[in-house]
This record gives sequence, C-alpha cells and structure tokens, in this order.
Amino acid sequence: MLATTHTDLVLRARELSMPTRSIPNASILTSIGTTGLQLYNFGQTVSMVFFLDNWKPASFYDRIRENASIGLHTLVLLDIKVKEQSLENMARGRKIYEPPRYMTVAQCAQQMLEIEEDVKKEGVYSKESLAVGVARVGAEDQKIVAGTLEELCDTDLGKPLHSLVLLGRRTHDLEREFLEEFAVNKETFGRVWKRDYEGKA
Amino acid sequence: MLATTHTDLVLRARELSMPTRSIPNASILTSIGTTGLQLYNFGQTVSMVFFLDNWKPASFYDRIRENASIGLHTLVLLDIKVKEQSLENMARGRKIYEPPRYMTVAQCAQQMLEIEEDVKKEGVYSKESLAVGVARVGAEDQKIVAGTLEELCDTDLGKPLHSLVLLGRRTHDLEREFLEEFAVNKETFGRVWKRDYEGKA
Repeated sequence: MLATTHTDLVLRARELSMPTRSIPNASILTSIGTTGLQLYNFGQTVSMVFFLDNWKPASFYDRIRENASIGLHTLVLLDIKVKEQSLENMARGRKIYEPPRYMTVAQCAQQMLEIEEDVKKEGVYSKESLAVGVARVGAEDQKIVAGTLEELCDTDLGKPLHSLVLLGRRTHDLEREFLEEFAVNKETFGRVWKRDYEGKA
Repeated sequence: MLATTHTDLVLRARELSMPTRSIPNASILTSIGTTGLQLYNFGQTVSMVFFLDNWKPASFYDRIRENASIGLHTLVLLDIKVKEQSLENMARGRKIYEPPRYMTVAQCAQQMLEIEEDVKKEGVYSKESLAVGVARVGAEDQKIVAGTLEELCDTDLGKPLHSLVLLGRRTHDLEREFLEEFAVNKETFGRVWKRDYEGKA
C-alpha cells in the first residue's frame, strides 16, 4: 500500500464488508538502499512523467526543493506507459495500443535539467548536482551509475525499470566511498562531492 | 540495506574482493502503508531509544521538526534491547543477559511528549497531535490504533514489534477516512483532524 489508489480499494472493500489484508513485500522505496545511500536520509519520494510539448508538470521540483531544504535525498520514480492508446485510436474507439515505453535515467536527468534551467531557475539543483541512476534493482543484471545530472543525461543503463536518486547535502563518507565505485568519472565525482556535499550535514 | 552499518559490510567485502548482492525484501518502511497513510508523504525516518534517567537523546525531535516544516509524516522506529548485559554483569565479565525489552507505542508517545514538554518546548507537536500506532505489521494479529499522542500514551497494542507514525499536516481525506476506523475515540480524532490537519497541504 503506497498511494491513495490502494487506500481507496481497501475502503471500497470495507463498505462491502469484505475483509482485506495487506501483505508486506519488496519495494523500490527500500531496495534503493542498494546504492549505499542511507534510507534514513531520504525525504519524500516523487514521480517523473514523460513530458509532452505542451505538458511539462513540474510539481516534482517543489517536492525536491522541500527535501533539499532539509538536506535529504530524493528518490524519483520514472514513468511507464503500457497499454496506452494514441489520441486518434482512442477517439475512434480502436483498441490498438502503442508500444510500451519506460523512462530511462537519461531522460529523467534531461527533464530535471530542463525544468531547472528553462522554467523554475531557483537553483534547487544544477547540472553539477550529484545523482545515482539504477536499473533493474534486485535482478542479476542490476546496474548502478553515479554522476552529475549532466553526466547521467548521457548514460545508458539498458533495459527497464530505471529509477534515479538526487543526492541531498546531508551525506556520510561511507556513502561517498560506496558510490565512487559506480562513478561515471571518479575524478568529477570526488571533486563535486568534496565541494558541495562533504560535511554539509 | 538501510544504514551505514550495511554499507560498511559491503565495503569490507569489496576490499577482500568478495562479491556481494543485495536482495530486496519487505520492510516496515513500506509496510507502514497498511495504515492508509500515503508513502509519498513520509519524510525521513527516525529512531526512538529507551530513555535512561541521565540519557534522553532528543535528536529525533530535530528530524521531526524538519519533516513537520514541510508537512510530512514521520515514521518512528522503536528501540529493542536483546542480549543486553547489566552494567554490573558487563564489568564482571559475566555472560548473563537481561530479559529482552521492546519499546511499546505507549512508551514512545510518552517519551515524545516528555521531550516536547520538558526539554525542547518548540511546539513541533503536542499531546493533541495525531499519530498512528501499529503492532506486528504483516502478521495475522496486526493492530492499528489512531489517536492523539496523549491517547496513545494509554493504549496497549500487545506483543512486539511496535512502530509509530506522527502525522504531518499534508494529509488526504482518504487517509482520514481510512484511519477513522482505527481511532481510539472517533469524536476526538475527527475534531482534531478537522482543526489541525484538514486542508493544510
């Protein structure tokens, strides 16, 4: 149970006097700990949707600003589009579905920078902010990449599902040590960490 | 992987060139969603330890203040003492262990109010703040109780393990509807919700 969608299901069952029970299971919200980032230092989780030319929802930015204001990491969950109809097929009532799409870490990093640089311009983060991209967490071919948002714009983590963590200032040296191994560029990573993250608790 | 303790284990293995792999599993950090509270609206998680007469660590309070400043819920994880020696037995090197102790929701609520009322006095929360106590999450006899911190001081949720969530201002009406069912006192719960939480996003 994560969102009001799930709460609503239970409430409807309750109205019909149907018993329900929730069974704990694995989740990206905790398995993201595989990045070595302390789960105690995560703020609220946000979602990133695929932007359209005329629709670029930026509410994630305000949530990141809140987390950043108290130094916390932000987990960004990335959009998936499965069983979506094109507007034309929907209008004509044709049950033809578009190929599934899964947002990549690179797309997420690009959209984040687009909102910061072209829309909000509040400096909540920048192309030099450190982030961690993950793919297929829990699978044998799980992948982790650490770098600046700019670097992550050019990474390819392969098949879905991807997620991203934007680092908060409140960091621990063990987090640096752990992530260095996965840095796109160890030199850049170490330099930016030392300048913007080290001892900023 | 939750804390630096776990990161450290992996780093030591890395130094010895031992491969490691982390396997996602269930966690109270997400199964707390069984309370109907949206996981998207949780801030950083805090821990509450058993107070001693001369040792009452209050760092949890500052973290709760940060979460509260942006309207978020706080999950409070409660202390457990297993295989602890008394000071005397430790000094004499006797491997005699005290009986295990598990903090209850009532003890946690009391310690929270003690810190607010006698130590910090910053009004981050009060005896009328709403919270949710849970016990044995995921088990057949899981229990949920919603009420003010004052009410929770007098609840008995039975056997361990217990956890507590202090509500943030940013709430959703479905959260109220879901929790009302578990209220110590529906009238008090509804009145405080309406006064302090409704529409405070």
